Amino acid sequence: MKIDFEGLPGEVLITDVTLRDGLQQERNVLETRDKVALVGDMIKAGVKSLEVTSFVRPDLVPQLADAAELFMALPAGSECNFRALVPNLRGYDRARKAGCKNIVLFVSATEEHNRNNLGKSIDETLDILGQVLSRATKDGVNTDVAVSMAFEQYPVKLRHVLEFLVDKGQKTVILCDTSGMANPKLVRERLQLAKRYFDREEVTLHFHDTTGCAIANVLVSLLEGFSSFDAAIGGLGGCPFAEGAAGNIALEDLVWFLSSLNVKTGIDIGKVVEINGKLSELLKRPLYDSKVARYFRGRKSVCGR
Amino acid sequence: MKIDFEGLPGEVLITDVTLRDGLQQERNVLETRDKVALVGDMIKAGVKSLEVTSFVRPDLVPQLADAAELFMALPAGSECNFRALVPNLRGYDRARKAGCKNIVLFVSATEEHNRNNLGKSIDETLDILGQVLSRATKDGVNTDVAVSMAFEQYPVKLRHVLEFLVDKGQKTVILCDTSGMANPKLVRERLQLAKRYFDREEVTLHFHDTTGCAIANVLVSLLEGFSSFDAAIGGLGGCPFAEGAAGNIALEDLVWFLSSLNVKTGIDIGKVVEINGKLSELLKRPLYDSKVARYFRGRKSVCGR
Repeated sequence: MKIDFEGLPGEVLITDVTLRDGLQQERNVLETRDKVALVGDMIKAGVKSLEVTSFVRPDLVPQLADAAELFMALPAGSECNFRALVPNLRGYDRARKAGCKNIVLFVSATEEHNRNNLGKSIDETLDILGQVLSRATKDGVNTDVAVSMAFEQYPVKLRHVLEFLVDKGQKTVILCDTSGMANPKLVRERLQLAKRYFDREEVTLHFHDTTGCAIANVLVSLLEGFSSFDAAIGGLGGCPFAEGAAGNIALEDLVWFLSSLNVKTGIDIGKVVEINGKLSELLKRPLYDSKVARYFRGRKSVCGR
Repeated sequence: MKIDFEGLPGEVLITDVTLRDGLQQERNVLETRDKVALVGDMIKAGVKSLEVTSFVRPDLVPQLADAAELFMALPAGSECNFRALVPNLRGYDRARKAGCKNIVLFVSATEEHNRNNLGKSIDETLDILGQVLSRATKDGVNTDVAVSMAFEQYPVKLRHVLEFLVDKGQKTVILCDTSGMANPKLVRERLQLAKRYFDREEVTLHFHDTTGCAIANVLVSLLEGFSSFDAAIGGLGGCPFAEGAAGNIALEDLVWFLSSLNVKTGIDIGKVVEINGKLSELLKRPLYDSKVARYFRGRKSVCGR
């Protein structure tokens, strides 16, 4: 077949999720001021959308316990879109109070993961999610909904969740490969399913890179006309309830890849590699799950010479 | 566009190059008996083609100094294809004496790399290469020719080299992304060029993974109808004369990826992950440039927890 690179989206929106998904399992808890500095660096690098925290219970995720404090310290005049995860009405109230205008609700496409992650069935979660959606709509708060485990072999409740969201008038969705086990065939299949419920520009793709397929999955998504992706510096991240899952697709590698295809991101590759260096210092270890960062920072191998 | 996964090659030939490209820069020199054991494990894993060594000057590459010894210790009755690099007539004579029936000659698509790697101009190299090809044809030895730096932005002598090979009656070629800087657009462009000189089934693709694009490059190659790839356990390898280049595409990741697309390789993923473990012990470091090996061996992150 002929591959039609000329038909790819001309521009892509990347949301950096380093500060939330990237950090949530890191042992070294970052100071709020360091997070604010990273946000500043990201904006200077051209990042237009950032998932900065989650309004979950502070005692459960120490790394994100400063959610309100962080939100109130973000640059007020910035045109960057700052989003935060919200699990329920209590989280919603905290987020609102902190000035958050873009919330991300979440639910899983498999019962097992939903129970492990949220302690509830999918329908119980959707019930709560529906309540938050109604409140947010009334309050004029932008909502997005992340669907975890959307690329499993058998994400049995994916249609059910997507139908629920459409019924509720939800305009956008984030399809998450939480386990990082997606591959081009699964991606094509799920994107074709998603198109029945949402326009392509309303769907964001959140790929982890457990088996090295993430960049190929992005290529397939682009060829299918999708143009919004999540990523994290140095390939950080992972879910405690998706066994063996690796981190997010690396922001550096995604920007490099898109640039090689002449797809615009507005993001400066040199600057994100610099951020990799700063974050490595803060976390006290190299962040070399990004091959591009490794290349630019002059290391040939993660573990070798 | 619609991606036609159904039109992909049904089967792919993978040549494992761990023992040559993978090891040539490793400090820990492996014993010949350990190499022979690895060959045995590879065959048990279903690998049908192996690049096992190079008949270069033993003092220049200590890791491959046992080329003749290794060749003579290979399992005689095996249906596996054992190939070895040969730089010149002297190397050819050594290879023949050791019983090698499949030789790989090599030349670069850029003058700078050719000079650094071989100390000669491309035309001087082609002259020698032509002499070896003639001798090999007379002797009934199978020949392949690896063209280094074939995926650079400006591989100025690529056409020149391909034309030379066709003139000499050479039937097959290995196009090498020596620097690992290829991307899907460059791959498509060079494969379309290669098709003017060779049939698709006569071309082997040798990708390194410096910027994380290698698996996407394989996907593009498959979509263009190519079906022969080189790979190395744990993503080992790299060229001392391609600055910053990372290792080969990892065999484990390539097999996993092809399997996810229902493309047959005949290779057992569990067994190659086991080989990763054995080789890690021999080299005294984890070989986690393979994400699949990392996943199966139970590690979430190269440098993290």
